[in-house]
Amino acid sequence: MIQVDVNTKQQSYPIRIGTGLLAKPENYAPLKANDKVMIVTNPTVAKHYLDTVTQALTQLGCQVDSVLLPDGEEYKTLESVNLIFTALLEKKHSRDSVIIALGGGVIGDMAGFAAASYQRGIRFMQIPTTLLAQVDSSVGGKTGVNHQLGKNMIGAFHQPIAVIIDTNTLYTLKKREFCSGLAEVIKYGAILDLPFFEWLEQNMADLMALKQTALQYCIQRCCQLKADIVAKDETEQGERALLNFGHTFGHAIESHLGYGQWLHGEAVAVGMLEAAVLSSLLGDLTQQDVARIEKLLIQAVLPTGSPETMQATDYLAYMQRDKKVIAGKLRLILLKQLGQAYISSDITQQQIIDSITHCSQSAITTYNANEC
Amino acid sequence: MIQVDVNTKQQSYPIRIGTGLLAKPENYAPLKANDKVMIVTNPTVAKHYLDTVTQALTQLGCQVDSVLLPDGEEYKTLESVNLIFTALLEKKHSRDSVIIALGGGVIGDMAGFAAASYQRGIRFMQIPTTLLAQVDSSVGGKTGVNHQLGKNMIGAFHQPIAVIIDTNTLYTLKKREFCSGLAEVIKYGAILDLPFFEWLEQNMADLMALKQTALQYCIQRCCQLKADIVAKDETEQGERALLNFGHTFGHAIESHLGYGQWLHGEAVAVGMLEAAVLSSLLGDLTQQDVARIEKLLIQAVLPTGSPETMQATDYLAYMQRDKKVIAGKLRLILLKQLGQAYISSDITQQQIIDSITHCSQSAITTYNANEC
Ligand SMILES: NC(=O)c1ccc[n+]([C@@H]2O[C@H](COP(=O)([O-])OP(=O)(O)OC[C@H]3O[C@@H](n4cnc5c(N)ncnc54)[C@H](O)[C@@H]3O)[C@@H](O)[C@H]2O)c1
Ligand SMILES: NC(=O)c1ccc[n+]([C@@H]2O[C@H](COP(=O)([O-])OP(=O)(O)OC[C@H]3O[C@@H](n4cnc5c(N)ncnc54)[C@H](O)[C@@H]3O)[C@@H](O)[C@H]2O)c1
Ligand SMILES: [Zn+2]
Ligand SMILES: [Zn+2]
Repeated sequence: MIQVDVNTKQQSYPIRIGTGLLAKPENYAPLKANDKVMIVTNPTVAKHYLDTVTQALTQLGCQVDSVLLPDGEEYKTLESVNLIFTALLEKKHSRDSVIIALGGGVIGDMAGFAAASYQRGIRFMQIPTTLLAQVDSSVGGKTGVNHQLGKNMIGAFHQPIAVIIDTNTLYTLKKREFCSGLAEVIKYGAILDLPFFEWLEQNMADLMALKQTALQYCIQRCCQLKADIVAKDETEQGERALLNFGHTFGHAIESHLGYGQWLHGEAVAVGMLEAAVLSSLLGDLTQQDVARIEKLLIQAVLPTGSPETMQATDYLAYMQRDKKVIAGKLRLILLKQLGQAYISSDITQQQIIDSITHCSQSAITTYNANEC
Repeated sequence: MIQVDVNTKQQSYPIRIGTGLLAKPENYAPLKANDKVMIVTNPTVAKHYLDTVTQALTQLGCQVDSVLLPDGEEYKTLESVNLIFTALLEKKHSRDSVIIALGGGVIGDMAGFAAASYQRGIRFMQIPTTLLAQVDSSVGGKTGVNHQLGKNMIGAFHQPIAVIIDTNTLYTLKKREFCSGLAEVIKYGAILDLPFFEWLEQNMADLMALKQTALQYCIQRCCQLKADIVAKDETEQGERALLNFGHTFGHAIESHLGYGQWLHGEAVAVGMLEAAVLSSLLGDLTQQDVARIEKLLIQAVLPTGSPETMQATDYLAYMQRDKKVIAGKLRLILLKQLGQAYISSDITQQQIIDSITHCSQSAITTYNANEC
């Protein structure tokens, strides 16, 4: 088992990474005998892992309840979170109880927000079961739900007391979901860590084949990079914004297509390439390095051009609406060079259009997710 | 204008107390030109004060939006808070926006929770317009809503950036609501401040007559006492619990009667007397001091005995369910003497029944709110 420590003002907590962690009671520390826990999950994940987790916790001496929420981003709502509150109240959970998120980012975000808000805050543990949740959403304490009028508009910063990553869970995950998570993995290399980017270039095949050594090193490195950033900037005032590389473009794609068409990582993949092209048009990133990012995305069976139905000009309206707009100015994360990102706030609309157009022309625009 | 400062880890902020504060733009600092604000209020309060506040803020150069929620404790729900989110998104409010709560505790609690959760936290200002909100709920950062299965079960700690108390607002408040607020006022004296308790004994008539000098001193003293406690114990781990004096009994009454029968302060009034009787049965508080509390409550036209439909044994089930139960043990706030409260955790059910019975027998049990 590998351990990565996250230190924030709110909370210091371990991320445990390894195979078969879920079956062993001792991996659930600081949970202990007589703790009351509420597992939040969904039917898809419950089918595979709820029994294992319940058994391990029962063995530990915990009192275990669980609540199943409907599966899907479209259910990441206040109403679903309210189902968690109802379950907690029906089973008489107090301020001492612990919520456990067992699932992907959708479950993690909702369970975390419920923990932040139930009786004004109770403890909470993450058991992420998608690659995206393991390398990204389960670490750092961002929690929340969507509103009809915008994604992730409601939420709280609430750090978990521990994150348990059992890499075996990735074997039951749909391949397309796995590939989507790889977009975030590539992101870490591109914005923060050239050696890791190079490691990815060498080990992408092993990752795609779900080889344990590669998987665990990859997840560890991503968690470490995210933990370092979160420790420095818990509530996203500055440096943490670098993690949004590719996301402003990506969100535009997600909004344009509507939920459930492209996966988050797929949109981010294209967004990263567009941001990389913009960086090269500004004279920072070399064209070779843009090509290296593109190649890595293709190896991870991710798209590298806008959806067919989307023109460069379509991006602009969505991008203006982005949460990262400060005092009306659009902030974009760009690359100075591979492994080094910065926050730019004086990009013109024309530059955005140029980079999108440039990117789409050079890319494989007819992405077929089924190939993944 | 009087100012009381509140210092917490999250935020330091001023409470401004005076007459006619709402009309003057400078009283809204730190708000300044170009700030975008969303006023949250209800039709009852809007009728009297929304124009005044909007004008002052517009004069200051702010961009002012407002949203009206239905009036009443039964609308203190996630659904109502969602109406605030919708208004914020429709009017394109960003992380820089400020929510202003204009109303009583119900509006303050909901607006505060919306501010804690919108885009994971935006700034928020309190303009409390009931006595209860002015001396209690607007100070200290507790925010939240009710759930079908329990009061105040969902929420966050989120401190305001300023609290503006215009004592003129009390002239439009129903007398019964005013009296209900006096219960919390009496509470501060009883648990923390014997000289203030004595001041109340001498000045209750002036308060009931809404005399400005008395009102302002009273509110200032209560805010100062609450600010001191909040500074020491922001998230209610210890000393802040003293503020729950009378509330565990009181909540039992509120639950038994159902929302909308007795007001919160009315239930707390009886609860305080019951807790005082319990304190005297334990040999701490003298019978004379119990009588002084009772007299003050009667002067404030507050009830001093259980509702007619409620037996001593009825309290127990509700009290077990209280949020303040830690590891199954009931914590009660009791008085060592007048002006000095403590947290007790080893009270038997029989002692609770005895004190309720004792209290009801000696009290005016047929309380008629209309006399207020
Ligand atoms: N909080 C953060 O910092 C943060 C960061 C990035 C993304 N997010 C959020 O994360 C969400 C996306 O998360 P996601 O990509 O994990 O999606 P997801 O949670 O919807 O999971 C994808 C699908 O895989 C299923 N699944 C999960 N684990 C499985 C397993 N081991 N085996 C089989 N099926 C499994 C799920 O039930 C779901 O159908 C978005 O809502 C996004 O906003 C949050
Ligand atoms: N957050 C905290 O620390 C805290 C502390 C105590 C109580 N509370 C909460 O406060 C709530 C009770 O607050 P409340 O007693 O202010 O009730 P309230 O907000 O319901 O107000 C009482 C009534 O008076 C009306 N009103 C308000 N101001 C008025 C004015 N100036 N003129 C005329 N009418 C006016 C309201 O519209 C309402 O009908 C409860 O929900 C309770 O849980 C919170
Ligand atoms: Zn992402
Ligand atoms: Zn109260």
